[in-house]
Parts: sequence; C-alpha cells; structure tokens
Amino acid sequence: MADFQILFQDSGSAARRGLLTTSHGKVETPAFIPVGTVGAVKGISPQQLKETGADIVLANTYHLLLRPGVEAVEALGGLHKFMAWNEPILTDSGGYQIFSLSGLTKVDDDGVEFSSHVDGTKIYLNAETATEIQNRLGADIIMCFDECAPSGADIQQLKKTVERTVRWAERCKQAHRNSRQMLFAIVQGGINAELRTHCAGELVKLDFDGYAIGGLSVGEGHEDMIKTAAHTTQQLPKDKPRYLMGVGRPADIIAAVKAGVDMFDCVLPTRNGRNAFAFTENGPLRLRNNAHIGDSAPIEGGCDCYCCKNFSRGTLRHFFNIGEMLGPILVSLHNLRFYQRLTAKIRELIEKNEFSDWSAKQLKSIDY
Amino acid sequence: MADFQILFQDSGSAARRGLLTTSHGKVETPAFIPVGTVGAVKGISPQQLKETGADIVLANTYHLLLRPGVEAVEALGGLHKFMAWNEPILTDSGGYQIFSLSGLTKVDDDGVEFSSHVDGTKIYLNAETATEIQNRLGADIIMCFDECAPSGADIQQLKKTVERTVRWAERCKQAHRNSRQMLFAIVQGGINAELRTHCAGELVKLDFDGYAIGGLSVGEGHEDMIKTAAHTTQQLPKDKPRYLMGVGRPADIIAAVKAGVDMFDCVLPTRNGRNAFAFTENGPLRLRNNAHIGDSAPIEGGCDCYCCKNFSRGTLRHFFNIGEMLGPILVSLHNLRFYQRLTAKIRELIEKNEFSDWSAKQLKSIDY
Repeated sequence: MADFQILFQDSGSAARRGLLTTSHGKVETPAFIPVGTVGAVKGISPQQLKETGADIVLANTYHLLLRPGVEAVEALGGLHKFMAWNEPILTDSGGYQIFSLSGLTKVDDDGVEFSSHVDGTKIYLNAETATEIQNRLGADIIMCFDECAPSGADIQQLKKTVERTVRWAERCKQAHRNSRQMLFAIVQGGINAELRTHCAGELVKLDFDGYAIGGLSVGEGHEDMIKTAAHTTQQLPKDKPRYLMGVGRPADIIAAVKAGVDMFDCVLPTRNGRNAFAFTENGPLRLRNNAHIGDSAPIEGGCDCYCCKNFSRGTLRHFFNIGEMLGPILVSLHNLRFYQRLTAKIRELIEKNEFSDWSAKQLKSIDY
Repeated sequence: MADFQILFQDSGSAARRGLLTTSHGKVETPAFIPVGTVGAVKGISPQQLKETGADIVLANTYHLLLRPGVEAVEALGGLHKFMAWNEPILTDSGGYQIFSLSGLTKVDDDGVEFSSHVDGTKIYLNAETATEIQNRLGADIIMCFDECAPSGADIQQLKKTVERTVRWAERCKQAHRNSRQMLFAIVQGGINAELRTHCAGELVKLDFDGYAIGGLSVGEGHEDMIKTAAHTTQQLPKDKPRYLMGVGRPADIIAAVKAGVDMFDCVLPTRNGRNAFAFTENGPLRLRNNAHIGDSAPIEGGCDCYCCKNFSRGTLRHFFNIGEMLGPILVSLHNLRFYQRLTAKIRELIEKNEFSDWSAKQLKSIDY
C-alpha cells in the first residue's frame, strides 16, 4: 500500500522530487508538515490548513497520550476523525517530548518512565507500547520510539542512545500491527558522522518504510546540522523517504533538500505567527511595530494566502495590539502558506533541474 | 440609496419580514448582527463569518476610536477594508460603551468627557464628533450619539437622558455628512412607557432612516424588555427598520420579532461560544463536561455549520480542556450559525404566515 516514488533527481545535488502515497492520500515531496501537536494546528481549522497547501499534518503521541488519551481518540473514530483531517497524518512516537518536556524518572534498556508535564502522573513507555499506541491512534506514518541524547552528551552517552534507538526500532518493527501505516525509523548519533553511519546502517538492515534524522535542530547550528543531514542521507537507501525532524528555518530547509531530505516538520511558521513575526521573501516582518499602524500593504505583495488577500499590515498590527486572536491566526496562515510556497517552488525547480543554481544563490542571500 | 421594504406582515402579530438595502448590500430582516467590537468577531475570519449566514456585522465606535483610532482606519481604506468585510456594517455611536466601560468624568448638555478604559486618556465626545467619527469610519448604518441612564435611574434622571438623547439626535442629523450611510436614532426611556412614547415621538418628527430601541437588556428582565419593545415599536413608523440593541437570548429575539423588531445584535453566541457553551434546539450544551470525553456526536445533529459537519463533542471538549483556540472558535461558529438559522427560520415562518403559532409554542417551551 505504502509507496514512495522519486519523480526527478536533481543533477547538481542530492535533492529529489518525490511522491509518497499513504492510506489517506499523496504527499508531494519535498514536503513541509505543519505541526498539530495536540490534534490541531493552533487556531487553524482543517479547512484553512488545507487552503495553505498542506497535504499532511503532524500530531504528537506524547501529548495525545496525556490528553485526551488513546481510548478517547479511538472512541471518537481514530485520529483522522478526531482532527477532522481525512488526509495524511504523521505521529511522532513521543520519544523527543519525553526527553524534552516531561520529568524523566527512569530510562533503561527496556524503556522510559516519566511524569506527565500536565499533572505529574507517572507513565511508562517502551518500543512496544509506543508502537501499540500509534497503531491505535491510526496515523498514516508512525515513528519508532527512540532515545534522544541530552544536549552536550559525550561520545559514550551518544553511543548508548544509538544502540538503544536501534534495538528499540527493531522491537517497534516487531510490534507494529497496522499494515495501513508506514513505520519510519529514526537515525540518532548527534553530529558524530561515525555514529550516524553506524545507526543508519543498522536501521537500514531492518528495512523500514522511511527514515528520519532525529536529534538535530537542538542547538548545533546550521552548518553542523546540514553537514550531519548530508552525511546521514548518504547512508540511506535512495528509494525510501527521508525526514529531517523539527527543521526548520527556510535556509535550513533549502540546504537540507540539497542534502537529500524529503520531509520536514517545524513549529516556526505557527509559533512565530502567533508572535506577530511574518516570513516574506524579503525577510521577516514584525507586525507589532508602530510603523505598521497606517500601513495598508499586505504582509507580502503577490502572496496568495487568505491573510494577504484580505488584510493590511495595519489591521494585523491592530489585532496584535488589542490581543485579538485573529492576529495570531492570520499571520500563522500566512507563514504556513509561505512554507508551502517555499516547498512548492523547490519541487518545481527540481523538476526543471534548476534547483542547484537557485539554492546556491538563495543560501548566499537568505539570512532567516 | 438607503431603502427598507416590508415584504410580508404577519397577520397574528407585529412581526414583519423585510429587506434593508445598504451601500454594501442587502440585509434580510429579521436580522441577527454578530458583534465585531474592535473590527473582528473574536477569532472568526470574515470568510468563516460569511459562511455562518451573516450579512451584516457590528463594530464599536468607542473601541475603534481608542484603538487604532479613526485616522488609522481611514489610512487603511475605511472600515470595510480594515475589517476585510465588503458587506453591510453597522457602527454603534459609542454612547453605551462610554456609560458602561469608561471612567465617566463629566456629562453635560453638550457632550461627555470620559477616560479611556485602555490607558486613561481623557476624551471628549458629543453629537457632532461622534457623527463625524462614524462618517469617517464609513459603516453603512451609523447610530446617533445617545445618553444611557444609569441602572436604577429615577424618573427625573430618565427624563433628562431622554431629552438629551432627542436633542443630540437632532444635532447628529444636522452633523451627518455621508449620504451613503443610513443614520438611525435611538429611543431611550428605560421601561417607562410614557417616556418611550415621548422619546419615539420626538425622534420620529426628526425623520431618521431607522430607529433603535436602546437602554434595554440591562437587567430589567425578559417581560419588561418585551413589553417596552412592543410599546416602543407601536410609536415608530411602519416603513422604517427597528433595531433592538444588545439583545439577546433566543427567546428574547423570538418575542421581540413578535413585537415588531427587525434587527438585533448580541455578544451571546460568541461570548458563550468562547466559554464552551453551545446553543442547540434542545437547549444549551456545556462542552467542558467530562461526559463528552468520548462523545462522537456533533454539537447538534443535522446542523450544517462547519463545526458540526467536522468535529465531535469529544474533540471540542479536548480543545477546551487543553486551551486550544480552535475550541472557542468552533463553538462560536456553531452558535453564530445557530442564531442565523433561528432568524432565517423566523423569516421563513413570517413568509408562510406561520410565525404567530410557532412563536407562541416556542416561547412556552424555550428556556434559553
């Protein structure tokens, strides 16, 4: 059922133009996946999200497990009905959130005990339960349960997380019970090339539907991130989708596509949008500025998003100034559309074999 | 340009089915006007608002005067462009908000000095400035600047506010400079029939495009409100629209239509929506209740709103539980659609001459 086709291969870089077929429809790659952590992209209706051009959305197992719980999502007909999004969905396994958000109480070779950041409840998750929960939630793409190394981890710690991540991935594959879902493994190893090679190699032997690059965008900086991503994609099979998790800024996405990455998710367009920060081709725009009080221009001239077609910077500035929710909503919509236009443009350029030249120029001039 | 036609007159009550033509389109009456106080119905995009069936929206002069200011709205192309709503708009004159929200510092026969509830700035408004500001904002229907009696006012105070309201209305008519806008006068007089008769009579002599009934829905209760509205509409010309300000609950609207009212505005559908309170034909639904955790039913079976067509009570309950903005937005949308369906049904029943029977039954059974 699951299928990934490479439609075009850029001749001047590792960039590829692909088509991923899931149980709920197709995803054009390179793809940007908006983040709907708790079952919604904050403030954005599924109809509005679709209008930004998104064809897949991400939800978080960790958050859904805490609230409303997997039983509630099942009772409500599964994740697609729950979110009112009858198109592709990807769920993260919860690993990253457990290591970043929760009170971690115990990690061993079997799994992880943590306390909920909501109410302190103790919860135990391991490869089998994380997979079972994702099977029950019902996303089209699910992720293996992985261990994320703490920031600043030494080589011994990194090695340990890689070993566990590989063993857990093997157990996730064994535990996986829903053939309508693709299962992706996550390559760990920090910015250590040798560990990335080893981790990727072991995971590829196990043969997954796709491979994610985890543990980046955690403070290592653009260069190390891209270097690591480029090295890692080289260890992965050409015919499987590659997903760089939690990335990133427009420049990160362009550079990572060049390095052979097919999929991205990031909270930047929505988080920044809620803070009155708009992305434009001419750089960021901060909409709280007094300069925008009487500014009748849209965020970005020529932009085809609902916000730019209808609202001036002056009205948006007013909404932020008075705390009206439409401000965050409209700028989130613009930013989501900006990201979708960026990936659409990248796809088009790859098809025309013009991506290498364009990306080289872009990466010189872009500083966001 | 402005025009009001009575299409049908109910034979068993004062209810009428009308069509109001404004510079930005038509309003089917009886009409419910959603409240977009500061230039937006909270959290609802103009496109979403239109989809609820609204053909007119209200904004508040008082709020817009404070933020962003009339110069900013003008610089942004006027209220319709500012709000991205190229359809009928009504602005309240600010009178009610000054007397209810601001720190009132001085009232005399000329006008009112008050301090902004936002930053304490002292502002002076009178009939001429309130009219000029509304001329500049550019709504299709603007309101005369009126004095609202304080709650519990005695007969002498009420008389004084009625006299001022009449004199100010005359000055507003003199000051009015925009022929594309209809100017409505506001009848005051508390629940005193004699004062209402006097106020209406004086205003009718001045000949306005429409007449509002102000000073109700301030704690007098359903019966006194409807009695006063019914008495007041009898003092008004049949061929002009009648607007009951700030009303109300579904039962208030049904009873007031019966009493001959054509237009209503109220924050209830949106304010209640933001508090997880949904209106349904079977009474209110409180979506925070644990009973809805696994409840896969929509708010209201058969409802054609975006919320009911896509989301279960369980998901809505989850959104409120985690503080996701989509909860308030979706329930506001449902409630706005509920109100539009109510007025659409009322219009249809008047056309069929079935409104009197239906309303008598409804008013017996409805308790919200």
